[in-house]
Amino acid sequence: MEGERITRRSLLTGTGKIAVMGAGIATVSGGLNLFSRAEAKGGPTEKWPWPYKKLDPAKTAEIAYNEWYRIFCGGAVVSSVFSQLREKVGEPYKSFPIDSFIFLEGGIAGWGTICGTNAGANIVTNLIIGPRTSGSEDGMMMGSEIMQWYADTSMPTFTPKDSKVKTEIPMTVANSPLCHVSVGKWMQAANKDLNSPERKDRCARLTASVAYHLVELLNDWKDGKYKTRGAMPAKSYNIQSQHNCTDCHGSNVPAPPFAAK
Amino acid sequence: MEGERITRRSLLTGTGKIAVMGAGIATVSGGLNLFSRAEAKGGPTEKWPWPYKKLDPAKTAEIAYNEWYRIFCGGAVVSSVFSQLREKVGEPYKSFPIDSFIFLEGGIAGWGTICGTNAGANIVTNLIIGPRTSGSEDGMMMGSEIMQWYADTSMPTFTPKDSKVKTEIPMTVANSPLCHVSVGKWMQAANKDLNSPERKDRCARLTASVAYHLVELLNDWKDGKYKTRGAMPAKSYNIQSQHNCTDCHGSNVPAPPFAAK
Repeated sequence: MEGERITRRSLLTGTGKIAVMGAGIATVSGGLNLFSRAEAKGGPTEKWPWPYKKLDPAKTAEIAYNEWYRIFCGGAVVSSVFSQLREKVGEPYKSFPIDSFIFLEGGIAGWGTICGTNAGANIVTNLIIGPRTSGSEDGMMMGSEIMQWYADTSMPTFTPKDSKVKTEIPMTVANSPLCHVSVGKWMQAANKDLNSPERKDRCARLTASVAYHLVELLNDWKDGKYKTRGAMPAKSYNIQSQHNCTDCHGSNVPAPPFAAK
Repeated sequence: MEGERITRRSLLTGTGKIAVMGAGIATVSGGLNLFSRAEAKGGPTEKWPWPYKKLDPAKTAEIAYNEWYRIFCGGAVVSSVFSQLREKVGEPYKSFPIDSFIFLEGGIAGWGTICGTNAGANIVTNLIIGPRTSGSEDGMMMGSEIMQWYADTSMPTFTPKDSKVKTEIPMTVANSPLCHVSVGKWMQAANKDLNSPERKDRCARLTASVAYHLVELLNDWKDGKYKTRGAMPAKSYNIQSQHNCTDCHGSNVPAPPFAAK
Protein backbone atom coordinates (compact mmCIF):
# COMPACT_ATOMS: atom_id res chain seq x y z
CA MET A 1 0.00 0.00 0.00
CA GLU A 2 2.76 2.44 0.90
CA GLY A 3 4.04 2.54 -2.65
CA GLU A 4 0.63 3.25 -4.05
CA ARG A 5 0.01 6.38 -2.05
CA ILE A 6 0.04 9.52 -4.08
CA THR A 7 2.10 12.49 -3.08
CA ARG A 8 0.70 15.79 -1.87
CA ARG A 9 2.08 17.35 -5.01
CA SER A 10 0.13 15.01 -7.27
CA LEU A 11 -2.95 15.64 -5.11
CA LEU A 12 -2.68 19.34 -5.77
CA THR A 13 -1.78 19.15 -9.42
CA GLY A 14 -4.17 16.32 -10.24
CA THR A 15 -1.41 14.27 -11.81
CA GLY A 16 -1.85 11.38 -9.39
CA LYS A 17 -4.92 10.02 -11.12
CA ILE A 18 -5.21 6.55 -12.45
CA ALA A 19 -1.66 5.53 -13.16
CA VAL A 20 -0.68 5.14 -9.53
CA MET A 21 -3.69 3.03 -8.65
CA GLY A 22 -5.38 -0.10 -9.73
CA ALA A 23 -3.29 -2.75 -8.07
CA GLY A 24 -5.18 -5.09 -5.78
CA ILE A 25 -8.19 -4.47 -3.58
CA ALA A 26 -8.59 -5.25 0.10
CA THR A 27 -9.30 -8.78 1.17
CA VAL A 28 -12.70 -9.05 2.76
CA SER A 29 -12.59 -10.19 6.35
CA GLY A 30 -13.46 -13.86 6.35
CA GLY A 31 -12.21 -14.48 2.84
CA LEU A 32 -14.19 -15.60 -0.18
CA ASN A 33 -17.49 -17.16 0.68
CA LEU A 34 -18.15 -18.35 -2.86
CA PHE A 35 -21.73 -19.60 -3.03
CA SER A 36 -22.18 -21.77 0.03
CA ARG A 37 -23.47 -19.15 2.46
CA ALA A 38 -25.47 -17.32 -0.17
CA GLU A 39 -27.25 -20.48 -1.24
CA ALA A 40 -28.14 -21.27 2.34
CA LYS A 41 -29.72 -17.89 2.97
CA GLY A 42 -30.71 -16.56 -0.45
CA GLY A 43 -31.85 -18.00 -3.73
CA PRO A 44 -30.46 -18.31 -7.26
CA THR A 45 -30.07 -14.52 -7.42
CA GLU A 46 -27.00 -14.93 -5.23
CA LYS A 47 -25.16 -17.11 -7.73
CA TRP A 48 -22.80 -15.19 -9.95
CA PRO A 49 -22.27 -14.25 -12.68
CA TRP A 50 -25.88 -13.78 -13.76
CA PRO A 51 -26.51 -15.02 -17.30
CA TYR A 52 -25.79 -12.21 -19.75
CA LYS A 53 -26.51 -11.88 -23.47
CA LYS A 54 -24.81 -9.17 -25.44
CA LEU A 55 -26.92 -6.07 -26.04
CA ASP A 56 -26.83 -3.34 -28.65
CA PRO A 57 -25.33 -0.18 -27.09
CA ALA A 58 -27.30 2.26 -29.24
CA LYS A 59 -30.62 0.49 -28.64
CA THR A 60 -29.86 0.38 -24.90
CA ALA A 61 -29.07 4.09 -24.92
CA GLU A 62 -32.38 4.89 -26.64
CA ILE A 63 -34.25 2.90 -24.00
CA ALA A 64 -32.33 4.68 -21.23
CA TYR A 65 -33.10 8.07 -22.74
CA ASN A 66 -36.83 7.38 -22.78
CA GLU A 67 -36.84 5.67 -19.40
CA TRP A 68 -35.31 8.80 -17.85
CA TYR A 69 -38.64 10.52 -18.43
CA ARG A 70 -40.32 7.73 -16.44
CA ILE A 71 -37.92 6.73 -13.63
CA PHE A 72 -35.00 9.15 -13.99
CA CYS A 73 -31.24 8.57 -14.17
CA GLY A 74 -30.45 5.59 -11.93
CA GLY A 75 -33.63 3.65 -12.56
CA ALA A 76 -33.30 4.28 -16.29
CA VAL A 77 -29.77 2.83 -16.48
CA VAL A 78 -30.88 -0.31 -14.62
CA SER A 79 -34.05 -0.60 -16.71
CA SER A 80 -32.27 -0.08 -20.04
CA VAL A 81 -30.18 -3.21 -19.46
CA PHE A 82 -32.48 -5.36 -17.31
CA SER A 83 -35.71 -4.83 -19.29
CA GLN A 84 -33.93 -6.30 -22.34
CA LEU A 85 -32.46 -9.16 -20.31
CA ARG A 86 -35.89 -9.94 -18.86
CA GLU A 87 -36.92 -10.70 -22.43
CA LYS A 88 -33.70 -12.34 -23.68
CA VAL A 89 -32.85 -14.30 -20.50
CA GLY A 90 -35.78 -14.15 -18.04
CA GLU A 91 -34.72 -14.85 -14.45
CA PRO A 92 -33.07 -13.57 -12.33
CA TYR A 93 -33.81 -10.27 -14.09
CA LYS A 94 -37.60 -10.67 -13.77
CA SER A 95 -37.22 -10.87 -10.00
CA PHE A 96 -35.23 -7.67 -9.71
CA PRO A 97 -37.40 -4.70 -8.67
CA ILE A 98 -36.18 -2.17 -11.23
CA ASP A 99 -38.71 0.57 -10.52
CA SER A 100 -37.66 0.91 -6.85
CA PHE A 101 -34.51 2.57 -8.07
CA ILE A 102 -36.25 5.75 -9.15
CA PHE A 103 -35.03 7.03 -5.76
CA LEU A 104 -31.52 7.36 -7.23
CA GLU A 105 -32.80 10.50 -8.96
CA GLY A 106 -30.99 13.76 -8.35
CA GLY A 107 -28.09 12.11 -6.58
CA ILE A 108 -30.34 10.08 -4.21
CA ALA A 109 -33.70 11.76 -3.57
CA GLY A 110 -32.42 15.14 -4.75
CA TRP A 111 -29.43 15.30 -2.38
CA GLY A 112 -26.88 15.70 -5.17
CA THR A 113 -24.60 12.86 -4.02
CA ILE A 114 -23.51 10.22 -6.57
CA CYS A 115 -25.10 10.78 -9.99
CA GLY A 116 -27.83 8.19 -10.38
CA THR A 117 -26.31 7.00 -13.65
CA ASN A 118 -23.17 5.97 -11.78
CA ALA A 119 -25.16 4.31 -8.99
CA GLY A 120 -27.28 2.49 -11.57
CA ALA A 121 -24.26 1.37 -13.57
CA ASN A 122 -22.59 0.02 -10.42
CA ILE A 123 -25.75 -1.88 -9.51
CA VAL A 124 -25.84 -3.46 -12.97
CA THR A 125 -22.16 -4.48 -13.03
CA ASN A 126 -22.21 -5.82 -9.48
CA LEU A 127 -25.41 -7.79 -10.09
CA ILE A 128 -24.39 -9.30 -13.41
CA ILE A 129 -20.70 -9.96 -12.80
CA GLY A 130 -21.20 -10.32 -9.06
CA PRO A 131 -19.72 -8.85 -5.89
CA ARG A 132 -15.99 -9.15 -5.35
CA THR A 133 -16.68 -11.81 -2.72
CA SER A 134 -18.00 -14.11 -5.45
CA GLY A 135 -14.67 -14.67 -7.11
CA SER A 136 -14.17 -11.78 -9.56
CA GLU A 137 -13.32 -8.14 -8.91
CA ASP A 138 -14.55 -7.11 -12.37
CA GLY A 139 -18.04 -6.05 -11.23
CA MET A 140 -16.82 -3.47 -8.76
CA MET A 141 -13.90 -2.41 -10.94
CA MET A 142 -16.12 -1.93 -14.00
CA GLY A 143 -18.40 0.28 -11.91
CA SER A 144 -15.40 2.26 -10.75
CA GLU A 145 -14.11 2.54 -14.32
CA ILE A 146 -17.45 3.99 -15.40
CA MET A 147 -17.26 6.63 -12.64
CA GLN A 148 -13.78 7.61 -13.81
CA TRP A 149 -14.93 7.79 -17.43
CA TYR A 150 -18.00 9.79 -16.36
CA ALA A 151 -15.81 12.29 -14.52
CA ASP A 152 -13.31 12.68 -17.37
CA THR A 153 -15.65 12.81 -20.38
CA SER A 154 -17.37 15.76 -22.02
CA MET A 155 -21.03 14.85 -21.53
CA PRO A 156 -23.49 13.97 -22.89
CA THR A 157 -21.85 11.82 -25.58
CA PHE A 158 -25.08 10.29 -26.93
CA THR A 159 -27.74 12.04 -28.99
CA PRO A 160 -31.06 10.21 -29.27
CA LYS A 161 -32.75 9.76 -32.63
CA ASP A 162 -35.88 11.61 -31.57
CA SER A 163 -34.96 13.93 -28.73
CA LYS A 164 -37.58 15.87 -26.83
CA VAL A 165 -35.44 19.01 -26.96
CA LYS A 166 -34.36 19.93 -30.48
CA THR A 167 -31.87 22.70 -29.69
CA GLU A 168 -28.20 22.06 -29.05
CA ILE A 169 -27.28 20.79 -25.58
CA PRO A 170 -23.92 22.08 -24.29
CA MET A 171 -21.33 19.49 -23.25
CA THR A 172 -19.37 19.76 -19.99
CA VAL A 173 -16.74 17.80 -18.06
CA ALA A 174 -17.82 17.15 -14.45
CA ASN A 175 -14.42 16.05 -13.11
CA SER A 176 -16.51 14.27 -10.45
CA PRO A 177 -19.00 11.38 -10.16
CA LEU A 178 -21.34 13.58 -8.08
CA CYS A 179 -24.71 14.83 -9.34
CA HIS A 180 -24.34 18.25 -7.71
CA VAL A 181 -21.01 18.95 -9.37
CA SER A 182 -21.99 17.46 -12.73
CA VAL A 183 -25.33 19.26 -12.98
CA GLY A 184 -23.96 22.46 -11.45
CA LYS A 185 -21.14 22.78 -14.00
CA TRP A 186 -23.57 22.08 -16.83
CA MET A 187 -26.17 24.58 -15.55
CA GLN A 188 -23.49 27.22 -15.29
CA ALA A 189 -22.24 26.57 -18.84
CA ALA A 190 -25.75 26.40 -20.31
CA ASN A 191 -27.27 29.12 -18.10
CA LYS A 192 -30.35 26.96 -17.76
CA ASP A 193 -32.56 26.39 -14.72
CA LEU A 194 -32.86 23.01 -12.98
CA ASN A 195 -36.47 22.82 -14.15
CA SER A 196 -35.74 23.78 -17.77
CA PRO A 197 -36.50 21.27 -20.55
CA GLU A 198 -32.85 21.58 -21.62
CA ARG A 199 -31.50 20.53 -18.19
CA LYS A 200 -33.87 17.57 -18.10
CA ASP A 201 -32.92 16.51 -21.62
CA ARG A 202 -29.24 16.89 -20.79
CA CYS A 203 -29.67 14.46 -17.89
CA ALA A 204 -31.69 12.07 -20.07
CA ARG A 205 -28.94 12.13 -22.74
CA LEU A 206 -26.24 11.66 -20.10
CA THR A 207 -28.20 8.66 -18.81
CA ALA A 208 -28.23 7.29 -22.34
CA SER A 209 -24.49 7.95 -22.67
CA VAL A 210 -23.69 5.96 -19.54
CA ALA A 211 -25.98 3.09 -20.58
CA TYR A 212 -24.22 2.97 -23.97
CA HIS A 213 -20.75 2.73 -22.44
CA LEU A 214 -21.93 0.28 -19.76
CA VAL A 215 -23.12 -2.15 -22.44
CA GLU A 216 -19.88 -1.72 -24.42
CA LEU A 217 -17.95 -2.84 -21.34
CA LEU A 218 -20.36 -5.67 -20.49
CA ASN A 219 -20.12 -6.96 -24.07
CA ASP A 220 -16.32 -6.93 -23.83
CA TRP A 221 -16.59 -8.84 -20.56
CA LYS A 222 -18.93 -11.39 -22.15
CA ASP A 223 -16.37 -11.87 -24.93
CA GLY A 224 -13.62 -12.40 -22.35
CA LYS A 225 -11.89 -9.23 -23.51
CA TYR A 226 -12.55 -7.02 -20.48
CA LYS A 227 -9.49 -5.69 -18.69
CA THR A 228 -10.46 -3.11 -16.12
CA ARG A 229 -9.25 0.47 -16.03
CA GLY A 230 -11.05 0.87 -12.70
CA ALA A 231 -9.48 1.53 -9.32
CA MET A 232 -10.48 2.02 -5.71
CA PRO A 233 -9.37 5.58 -4.92
CA ALA A 234 -9.40 5.01 -1.14
CA LYS A 235 -6.33 2.83 -1.62
CA SER A 236 -4.29 5.72 -2.95
CA TYR A 237 -5.48 8.70 -0.92
CA ASN A 238 -5.70 7.02 2.48
CA ILE A 239 -9.28 8.25 2.55
CA GLN A 240 -12.32 7.41 0.43
CA SER A 241 -12.12 10.11 -2.20
CA GLN A 242 -12.58 11.47 -5.67
CA HIS A 243 -9.56 12.78 -7.55
CA ASN A 244 -10.62 16.41 -7.67
CA CYS A 245 -9.45 17.42 -4.19
CA THR A 246 -8.96 21.09 -5.03
CA ASP A 247 -12.55 21.47 -6.32
CA CYS A 248 -13.75 21.61 -2.71
CA HIS A 249 -10.56 22.13 -0.69
CA GLY A 250 -8.91 24.77 -2.87
CA SER A 251 -5.14 24.75 -2.53
CA ASN A 252 -5.35 23.77 1.14
CA VAL A 253 -5.92 20.03 0.79
CA PRO A 254 -5.68 18.42 4.24
CA ALA A 255 -3.60 15.27 4.67
CA PRO A 256 -5.48 12.37 6.26
CA PRO A 257 -3.86 11.08 9.50
CA PHE A 258 -0.68 9.11 8.79
CA ALA A 259 -1.00 9.53 5.01
CA ALA A 260 2.33 11.33 4.82
CA LYS A 261 4.21 8.54 6.61
CA MET B 1 -41.96 26.13 -5.75
CA GLU B 2 -41.01 29.78 -5.56
CA GLY B 3 -42.09 30.03 -1.93
CA GLU B 4 -39.99 27.03 -0.96
CA ARG B 5 -36.73 28.41 -2.21
CA ILE B 6 -34.36 29.28 0.53
CA THR B 7 -32.65 32.62 0.64
CA ARG B 8 -28.95 33.15 0.04
CA ARG B 9 -28.73 34.28 3.65
CA SER B 10 -30.13 30.99 4.93
CA LEU B 11 -27.79 29.18 2.57
CA LEU B 12 -24.82 30.85 4.17
CA THR B 13 -25.97 30.64 7.77
CA GLY B 14 -27.39 27.15 7.47
CA THR B 15 -30.75 28.23 8.89
CA GLY B 16 -32.65 27.21 5.78
CA LYS B 17 -32.58 23.53 6.63
CA ILE B 18 -35.64 21.42 7.01
CA ALA B 19 -38.36 23.85 7.95
CA VAL B 20 -38.60 25.41 4.51
CA MET B 21 -38.81 22.10 2.71
CA GLY B 22 -40.83 18.98 2.77
CA ALA B 23 -43.91 20.04 0.85
CA GLY B 24 -44.66 17.93 -2.18
CA ILE B 25 -42.37 16.16 -4.62
CA ALA B 26 -42.34 16.39 -8.37
CA THR B 27 -44.88 14.47 -10.37
CA VAL B 28 -43.22 11.83 -12.49
CA SER B 29 -43.70 12.33 -16.18
CA GLY B 30 -46.41 9.95 -17.24
CA GLY B 31 -48.08 9.87 -13.84
CA LEU B 32 -48.55 6.94 -11.49
CA ASN B 33 -48.17 3.59 -13.16
CA LEU B 34 -49.45 1.66 -10.13
CA PHE B 35 -48.81 -2.01 -10.76
CA SER B 36 -50.06 -2.68 -14.25
CA ARG B 37 -46.87 -2.07 -16.20
CA ALA B 38 -44.66 -3.61 -13.53
CA GLU B 39 -46.71 -6.80 -13.48
CA ALA B 40 -46.45 -7.08 -17.23
CA LYS B 41 -42.68 -6.82 -17.27
CA GLY B 42 -41.53 -7.86 -13.82
CA GLY B 43 -42.68 -10.27 -11.17
CA PRO B 44 -44.14 -10.05 -7.66
CA THR B 45 -41.08 -8.09 -6.53
CA GLU B 46 -42.60 -5.09 -8.31
CA LYS B 47 -45.73 -5.05 -6.16
CA TRP B 48 -45.52 -2.70 -3.22
CA PRO B 49 -45.36 -2.50 -0.31
CA TRP B 50 -43.36 -5.66 0.33
CA PRO B 51 -44.65 -7.61 3.34
CA TYR B 52 -42.93 -6.34 6.47
CA LYS B 53 -42.82 -7.70 10.01
CA LYS B 54 -41.57 -5.49 12.80
CA LEU B 55 -37.97 -6.10 13.83
CA ASP B 56 -36.02 -5.44 17.01
CA PRO B 57 -33.80 -2.38 16.48
CA ALA B 58 -31.05 -3.51 18.85
CA LYS B 59 -30.90 -7.01 17.35
CA THR B 60 -30.81 -5.51 13.86
CA ALA B 61 -27.98 -3.19 14.88
CA GLU B 62 -25.95 -6.10 16.26
CA ILE B 63 -26.38 -7.97 12.97
CA ALA B 64 -25.38 -4.85 11.01
CA TYR B 65 -22.29 -4.38 13.17
CA ASN B 66 -21.11 -7.92 12.50
CA GLU B 67 -22.08 -7.87 8.84
CA TRP B 68 -19.88 -4.79 8.34
CA TYR B 69 -16.88 -7.06 8.82
CA ARG B 70 -18.21 -9.26 5.99
CA ILE B 71 -19.81 -6.95 3.41
CA PHE B 72 -19.19 -3.43 4.75
CA CYS B 73 -21.54 -0.50 5.33
CA GLY B 74 -24.17 -0.59 2.59
CA GLY B 75 -24.39 -4.34 2.25
CA ALA B 76 -24.55 -4.68 6.03
CA VAL B 77 -27.52 -2.33 6.38
CA VAL B 78 -29.43 -4.22 3.68
CA SER B 79 -28.45 -7.58 5.15
CA SER B 80 -29.34 -6.63 8.74
CA VAL B 81 -32.97 -6.07 7.72
CA PHE B 82 -33.41 -8.48 4.81
CA SER B 83 -31.69 -11.51 6.38
CA GLN B 84 -34.24 -11.37 9.21
CA LEU B 85 -37.14 -10.86 6.79
CA ARG B 86 -35.94 -13.83 4.70
CA GLU B 87 -36.62 -15.92 7.78
CA LYS B 88 -39.77 -14.18 9.06
CA VAL B 89 -41.41 -13.52 5.67
CA GLY B 90 -39.53 -15.40 2.91
CA GLU B 91 -40.14 -13.92 -0.54
CA PRO B 92 -39.51 -11.42 -2.03
CA TYR B 93 -36.56 -11.03 0.35
CA LYS B 94 -35.03 -14.39 -0.59
CA SER B 95 -34.85 -13.25 -4.22
CA PHE B 96 -33.00 -10.04 -3.45
CA PRO B 97 -29.23 -10.36 -4.04
CA ILE B 98 -28.00 -8.81 -0.79
CA ASP B 99 -24.31 -9.60 -1.19
CA SER B 100 -24.01 -7.67 -4.46
CA PHE B 101 -24.25 -4.51 -2.44
CA ILE B 102 -20.83 -4.86 -0.89
CA PHE B 103 -19.84 -2.43 -3.66
CA LEU B 104 -21.43 0.41 -1.67
CA GLU B 105 -18.35 0.27 0.58
CA GLY B 106 -16.33 3.43 1.05
CA GLY B 107 -18.90 5.63 -0.66
CA ILE B 108 -19.21 3.35 -3.74
CA ALA B 109 -16.06 1.34 -4.43
CA GLY B 110 -13.91 3.66 -2.31
CA TRP B 111 -14.89 6.89 -4.10
CA GLY B 112 -16.19 8.59 -0.94
CA THR B 113 -19.56 9.59 -2.42
CA ILE B 114 -22.73 8.75 -0.46
CA CYS B 115 -21.98 6.80 2.73
CA GLY B 116 -22.96 3.19 2.09
CA THR B 117 -25.19 3.19 5.16
CA ASN B 118 -27.33 5.91 3.58
CA ALA B 119 -27.40 4.13 0.23
CA GLY B 120 -28.31 0.85 1.94
CA ALA B 121 -31.04 2.49 4.02
CA ASN B 122 -32.55 4.09 0.92
CA ILE B 123 -32.53 0.74 -0.87
CA VAL B 124 -34.36 -0.87 2.06
CA THR B 125 -37.02 1.84 2.41
CA ASN B 126 -37.65 2.07 -1.34
CA LEU B 127 -37.89 -1.72 -1.69
CA ILE B 128 -40.17 -2.32 1.29
CA ILE B 129 -42.43 0.73 1.07
CA GLY B 130 -41.97 1.05 -2.67
CA PRO B 131 -40.96 3.73 -5.14
CA ARG B 132 -42.93 6.95 -5.19
CA THR B 133 -44.53 5.82 -8.46
CA SER B 134 -46.26 2.99 -6.59
CA GLY B 135 -48.60 5.24 -4.65
CA SER B 136 -46.68 6.35 -1.54
CA GLU B 137 -43.87 8.85 -1.15
CA ASP B 138 -42.88 7.42 2.23
CA GLY B 139 -40.12 5.15 0.90
CA MET B 140 -38.12 7.95 -0.68
CA MET B 141 -38.93 10.40 2.09
CA MET B 142 -37.87 7.95 4.82
CA GLY B 143 -34.56 7.47 3.02
CA SER B 144 -34.14 11.22 2.81
CA GLU B 145 -35.03 11.61 6.49
CA ILE B 146 -32.33 9.09 7.39
CA MET B 147 -29.74 11.10 5.41
CA GLN B 148 -30.73 14.26 7.27
CA TRP B 149 -30.55 12.47 10.62
CA TYR B 150 -27.18 10.96 9.63
CA ALA B 151 -25.81 14.41 8.79
CA ASP B 152 -27.09 16.05 11.99
CA THR B 153 -26.29 13.35 14.56
CA SER B 154 -23.14 12.79 16.58
CA MET B 155 -22.09 9.35 15.37
CA PRO B 156 -21.86 6.50 16.12
CA THR B 157 -24.88 6.31 18.44
CA PHE B 158 -24.85 2.51 18.88
CA THR B 159 -22.34 0.51 20.91
CA PRO B 160 -22.38 -3.24 20.24
CA LYS B 161 -22.40 -5.71 23.10
CA ASP B 162 -19.16 -7.34 22.10
CA SER B 163 -17.19 -4.83 20.06
CA LYS B 164 -13.97 -5.78 18.31
CA VAL B 165 -12.30 -2.57 19.52
CA LYS B 166 -12.54 -2.08 23.27
CA THR B 167 -11.24 1.48 23.55
CA GLU B 168 -13.47 4.52 23.30
CA ILE B 169 -14.53 5.59 19.79
CA PRO B 170 -14.84 9.39 19.36
CA MET B 171 -18.18 10.71 18.10
CA THR B 172 -18.42 13.32 15.33
CA VAL B 173 -21.11 15.18 13.38
CA ALA B 174 -20.63 14.83 9.61
CA ASN B 175 -23.02 17.60 8.53
CA SER B 176 -23.18 15.65 5.25
CA PRO B 177 -24.42 12.29 3.94
CA LEU B 178 -21.10 11.74 2.12
CA CYS B 179 -18.58 9.08 3.13
CA HIS B 180 -15.55 11.30 2.45
CA VAL B 181 -16.81 14.10 4.70
CA SER B 182 -18.09 11.78 7.43
CA VAL B 183 -14.97 9.64 7.61
CA GLY B 184 -12.65 12.61 7.11
CA LYS B 185 -14.10 14.55 10.04
CA TRP B 186 -13.94 11.48 12.25
CA MET B 187 -10.33 10.64 11.24
CA GLN B 188 -9.33 14.19 12.01
CA ALA B 189 -11.00 14.13 15.44
CA ALA B 190 -9.66 10.68 16.31
CA ASN B 191 -6.26 11.10 14.63
CA LYS B 192 -6.59 7.56 13.33
CA ASP B 193 -5.57 6.15 9.96
CA LEU B 194 -8.09 4.79 7.44
CA ASN B 195 -6.68 1.32 7.99
CA SER B 196 -6.72 1.50 11.80
CA PRO B 197 -8.92 -0.94 13.76
CA GLU B 198 -10.58 2.09 15.38
CA ARG B 199 -11.66 3.62 12.03
CA LYS B 200 -13.04 0.28 10.89
CA ASP B 201 -14.92 -0.23 14.14
CA ARG B 202 -16.26 3.33 13.97
CA CYS B 203 -17.74 2.58 10.55
CA ALA B 204 -19.13 -0.75 11.78
CA ARG B 205 -20.78 1.02 14.74
CA LEU B 206 -22.11 3.77 12.49
CA THR B 207 -23.58 1.06 10.25
CA ALA B 208 -25.27 -0.43 13.31
CA SER B 209 -26.54 3.02 14.32
CA VAL B 210 -28.19 3.58 10.94
CA ALA B 211 -29.71 0.09 10.92
CA TYR B 212 -31.15 0.73 14.41
CA HIS B 213 -32.82 3.99 13.37
CA LEU B 214 -33.99 2.53 10.05
CA VAL B 215 -35.89 -0.21 11.87
CA GLU B 216 -37.37 2.29 14.32
CA LEU B 217 -38.83 4.21 11.38
CA LEU B 218 -39.99 1.08 9.53
CA ASN B 219 -41.74 -0.14 12.69
CA ASP B 220 -43.52 3.21 13.02
CA TRP B 221 -44.57 2.92 9.39
CA LYS B 222 -45.86 -0.61 9.96
CA ASP B 223 -47.91 0.72 12.88
CA GLY B 224 -49.35 3.48 10.66
CA LYS B 225 -47.60 6.10 12.79
CA TYR B 226 -44.93 7.23 10.31
CA LYS B 227 -45.00 10.88 9.35
CA THR B 228 -41.93 11.82 7.37
CA ARG B 229 -39.42 14.47 8.32
CA GLY B 230 -37.74 13.88 4.97
CA ALA B 231 -37.43 16.34 2.13
CA MET B 232 -35.99 16.57 -1.37
CA PRO B 233 -33.33 19.28 -1.12
CA ALA B 234 -33.29 19.92 -4.89
CA LYS B 235 -36.71 21.50 -4.50
CA SER B 236 -35.38 24.22 -2.23
CA TYR B 237 -31.95 25.00 -3.64
CA ASN B 238 -32.81 24.87 -7.33
CA ILE B 239 -29.98 22.34 -7.63
CA GLN B 240 -29.56 18.85 -6.24
CA SER B 241 -27.71 19.57 -3.03
CA GLN B 242 -26.82 18.94 0.56
CA HIS B 243 -27.43 21.69 3.12
CA ASN B 244 -23.78 22.34 3.96
CA CYS B 245 -22.97 24.63 1.03
CA THR B 246 -20.16 26.49 2.79
CA ASP B 247 -18.29 23.25 3.60
CA CYS B 248 -17.07 23.16 0.00
CA HIS B 249 -17.87 26.62 -1.36
CA GLY B 250 -16.71 28.68 1.62
CA SER B 251 -18.50 32.01 1.83
CA ASN B 252 -18.71 32.28 -1.96
CA VAL B 253 -21.73 30.04 -2.62
CA PRO B 254 -22.73 30.36 -6.28
CA ALA B 255 -26.40 30.86 -7.14
CA PRO B 256 -27.74 28.34 -9.65
CA PRO B 257 -29.17 29.94 -12.83
CA PHE B 258 -32.52 31.64 -12.18
CA ALA B 259 -32.53 30.66 -8.50
CA ALA B 260 -32.56 34.29 -7.39
CA LYS B 261 -35.63 35.13 -9.48
